[in-house]
Amino acid sequence: MSKKLRIVPLGGLGEVGKNMMAYEYDDQIMIVDTGIMFPENDMLGIDYIIPDYKYLQDKRDKVKGIVITHGHEDHTGAIRHVFEEFPVPIYGTALTLGLIEVKLERAKLLDKSKLIEVDADDEIEIGPFKVEFCHVAHSIPDCVALGITTPAGFVIHTGDYKFDPTPVDNWPTDIAKLAEWAKRGVMVLLADSTNADKPGRTPSERVIDDAFEQVFNKAKGRILVATFASLLSRVQQVAEACESHDRKIAFVGYSMRENAKMARKLGYLDVPEELVVSLEDALKMPPSKVVLMCTGSQGEPSSIMGRLAAGTNRQFDVKEGDTIILSSTPIPGNEETVHRTINKLIRRGAEVIYDPIAKVHVSGHAGQDEMYDMLHLIKPEFVIPVHGELRHLTHHGILAQKAGIPAENIAVIENGQAVEFKDGKMKLGKRIPGGYVFVDGAGVGDVGPAVVRDREALAKDGFIFVNLRVNRGSGELLRDPEIITRGFVYQKASQELFDAVNKKIKQTVTRANGNLENDLQQVLRSFLYNETKRRPMIFVSVDES
Amino acid sequence: MSKKLRIVPLGGLGEVGKNMMAYEYDDQIMIVDTGIMFPENDMLGIDYIIPDYKYLQDKRDKVKGIVITHGHEDHTGAIRHVFEEFPVPIYGTALTLGLIEVKLERAKLLDKSKLIEVDADDEIEIGPFKVEFCHVAHSIPDCVALGITTPAGFVIHTGDYKFDPTPVDNWPTDIAKLAEWAKRGVMVLLADSTNADKPGRTPSERVIDDAFEQVFNKAKGRILVATFASLLSRVQQVAEACESHDRKIAFVGYSMRENAKMARKLGYLDVPEELVVSLEDALKMPPSKVVLMCTGSQGEPSSIMGRLAAGTNRQFDVKEGDTIILSSTPIPGNEETVHRTINKLIRRGAEVIYDPIAKVHVSGHAGQDEMYDMLHLIKPEFVIPVHGELRHLTHHGILAQKAGIPAENIAVIENGQAVEFKDGKMKLGKRIPGGYVFVDGAGVGDVGPAVVRDREALAKDGFIFVNLRVNRGSGELLRDPEIITRGFVYQKASQELFDAVNKKIKQTVTRANGNLENDLQQVLRSFLYNETKRRPMIFVSVDES
Repeated sequence: MSKKLRIVPLGGLGEVGKNMMAYEYDDQIMIVDTGIMFPENDMLGIDYIIPDYKYLQDKRDKVKGIVITHGHEDHTGAIRHVFEEFPVPIYGTALTLGLIEVKLERAKLLDKSKLIEVDADDEIEIGPFKVEFCHVAHSIPDCVALGITTPAGFVIHTGDYKFDPTPVDNWPTDIAKLAEWAKRGVMVLLADSTNADKPGRTPSERVIDDAFEQVFNKAKGRILVATFASLLSRVQQVAEACESHDRKIAFVGYSMRENAKMARKLGYLDVPEELVVSLEDALKMPPSKVVLMCTGSQGEPSSIMGRLAAGTNRQFDVKEGDTIILSSTPIPGNEETVHRTINKLIRRGAEVIYDPIAKVHVSGHAGQDEMYDMLHLIKPEFVIPVHGELRHLTHHGILAQKAGIPAENIAVIENGQAVEFKDGKMKLGKRIPGGYVFVDGAGVGDVGPAVVRDREALAKDGFIFVNLRVNRGSGELLRDPEIITRGFVYQKASQELFDAVNKKIKQTVTRANGNLENDLQQVLRSFLYNETKRRPMIFVSVDES
Repeated sequence: MSKKLRIVPLGGLGEVGKNMMAYEYDDQIMIVDTGIMFPENDMLGIDYIIPDYKYLQDKRDKVKGIVITHGHEDHTGAIRHVFEEFPVPIYGTALTLGLIEVKLERAKLLDKSKLIEVDADDEIEIGPFKVEFCHVAHSIPDCVALGITTPAGFVIHTGDYKFDPTPVDNWPTDIAKLAEWAKRGVMVLLADSTNADKPGRTPSERVIDDAFEQVFNKAKGRILVATFASLLSRVQQVAEACESHDRKIAFVGYSMRENAKMARKLGYLDVPEELVVSLEDALKMPPSKVVLMCTGSQGEPSSIMGRLAAGTNRQFDVKEGDTIILSSTPIPGNEETVHRTINKLIRRGAEVIYDPIAKVHVSGHAGQDEMYDMLHLIKPEFVIPVHGELRHLTHHGILAQKAGIPAENIAVIENGQAVEFKDGKMKLGKRIPGGYVFVDGAGVGDVGPAVVRDREALAKDGFIFVNLRVNRGSGELLRDPEIITRGFVYQKASQELFDAVNKKIKQTVTRANGNLENDLQQVLRSFLYNETKRRPMIFVSVDES
């Protein structure tokens, strides 16, 4: 086999190239990002999903290094699982590594790991790949795009980015460096597709200042701001609003506290010591003098905001006069939970500010016009849209065509589809079989589609369990049937139904002349469906003695 | 008790005054609307939710009539349940009654019912209430607002509305009539709050024509349009686009076919006979000559679009070259399903057009500026925001204050909260206890929170059932434990775990000296949690012999 560059997006059936990519040349492999996916609403009981990297497992000793573009969960969350399989050096910027350290430590893997800090001026070598970095703006600081020199050609991997002209940390995307890379001639661009169906440009993080200003001017009581713990620029903006409105800030909740601490230590957050108070102190101060900076903008039941909405937070409650800003938009699939949380907070007396009531959140990803800018700036020969669902990738492909890239030079692919480059040509490689790897509790991959299907059936109509003792010889019932049911009907209020079930069982036992368990299942299935139009799972256990 | 007007929004804990309202005076009651709610994602297995009208059940003979404002499910869907309780005359416009007839017929109640057709010029009496009608524009034709003359004062109940200046049926909201009503002096306005958090005005239905024009110009193959079967104006627009682009239209799916048939018969849909072909004929025609008008814009698995996405539609499949327009926005909570459906349709080779790719849908409800217009036009003394979640009602209340209504004259209330009017004063009445009434299969109200909680637990971690036979005297096991599990782990791949479970059971049986069932539950609960970090429901059945 002659030498070629192979790029393989891994990460389940969903969003492509978001969570993990493999770059392969001459049998040497570099991994870019190790993210998790969040389960969809019908993946019942699943905690999270990790990339399906079976493909790499029989090439274990070929994997030479892991590069992480930025510190978000969908790019770092599976690091412990990936590092356990492939204990190779991990490269990232200071903040990214700071966040990864926490994860590896919790998994007791930090001692075994080799974390190598890079900054945007560095250049590293991983096997046959020379990797350079370019700072990009996003919704967490210290993100990088990758410029990857491979023997087959030059590759740009944008990671998550936007062209924010006025980012909160005054560190915009380094367009000059992208232009310098472009001048070298770029074989292939792999670029963020998240907002490929959103016209225009994503507004600057700075537009949020105005909304904060208005809310802070008007609020007479406490202000609670909820956002992602990793959205440090938002925390910075809240701190600045506190300073100009003579309020102190308290960081509430473990992840918010820890992230703020680390980001202040590493210099990503500029919050003077005298501005910060502990939650305990904040709760004793006049309401008009404090801001509580919390997590839980997605209404997660275990978060501060989720507990406040439910009235189960231990240290304090929402009270009349509180102003709550939800500074985020619902993650797709989460809308209902977020809206319900808002309703509950209002019911508890708070005024709740959320988008579209006020512009208190903007996306961290480029809009269509910025995606055009990237395409025009880089002028790649080939384009692989990444980081998006198929609908986003498809539209990114359409944008690329409008930007002058020939259709045959654009690879709209799904996870597992390898793309190969050789002699300046692109072709699709093998499709690597794979799917979701569910993490549920302590189990990784032990819950598959069959178990989830059972959970679905149980969630829909519950089950009924019938336990019988019959005489081996006569086939007569030796005692009344034991019936256990959950999730089907409210048993205590359904006496009539269960009397009828009992009768059916006795009739069937009397008449049965083959397989009593099967007969009973069939009889009960059709009887219960006729009576209730429901299909509980039915289990029958017959004990002969 | 002296006489007063009591207004009671019924309909569960969710959106207020959306599904059913009771107007009560001098012990005589008029019901307005009888809608259903759709279950939220965590109401597992529930088909739909009907209003909780327990409050009316001991006043059965006081209920004098039911008025329906328009034909949407969230205003009509529970008619069979409500009519069964309260067999009184039902008033509505021609289209609304046409849709209700179908429901009553299916429930074998049509013969017993008395449907009284009204039009916008009519005036009816229901007990002490004189009801007049005013045409309003919405996303289904023939909607009315109600002007209700009561002994306590004049009430306007808007129903769902928007001020569309160029509706597809050229029948805009009758502002002159609203103005005439306003001149009489309006005591209280109950108005639609759906878009209270959306700035500006809702665009006219007509803006969609442009998007259709572009898509029809470009499409070379078949065009499939999916929307709600009740969104007749959209169907009209598609038919017009067909006419000007020389394509025939086929109505696909039961509800789309039936609705189109009835609407054409009643004159709400102006589609010439020669434009329509059967699905069978459409499938034989050149793809560039046909449009298939389908349901399933929400990706419901049983709808045409859901089956096309899954590849399980019987009569035809999506094919390369098809253009599919999803002419709707996801109902809140449905986003994930809709997005997944889009991805699947793209994977099957279709080009899929949806908002925000193109403006192929607009809301049927007034935006903030239209809500201001309504308030300024009617100049009510009191305002009760209805039709929305608490967050919408609250913001409608804020808008009303900005429009000059004193805060104490605005009642932001939740379902079950009665509002009373007497001597020109408004006060909150009793809070009527109530909740969700779940309909699941054939059962109405038999599935309550306890059953749903069990379904949740089963959905999360499944169950494990242990069936034992022990010797009554010695307490020894008479045979190996029978273990049944679903939704917990994949049993066949978890031999080791179940070997350990077996061992635990045997140990516990040997040592047990009290309640074996309880002991075993506890032992297994902590063992399984330690091993798997999951909490399946555990059932133990011990049979002594």
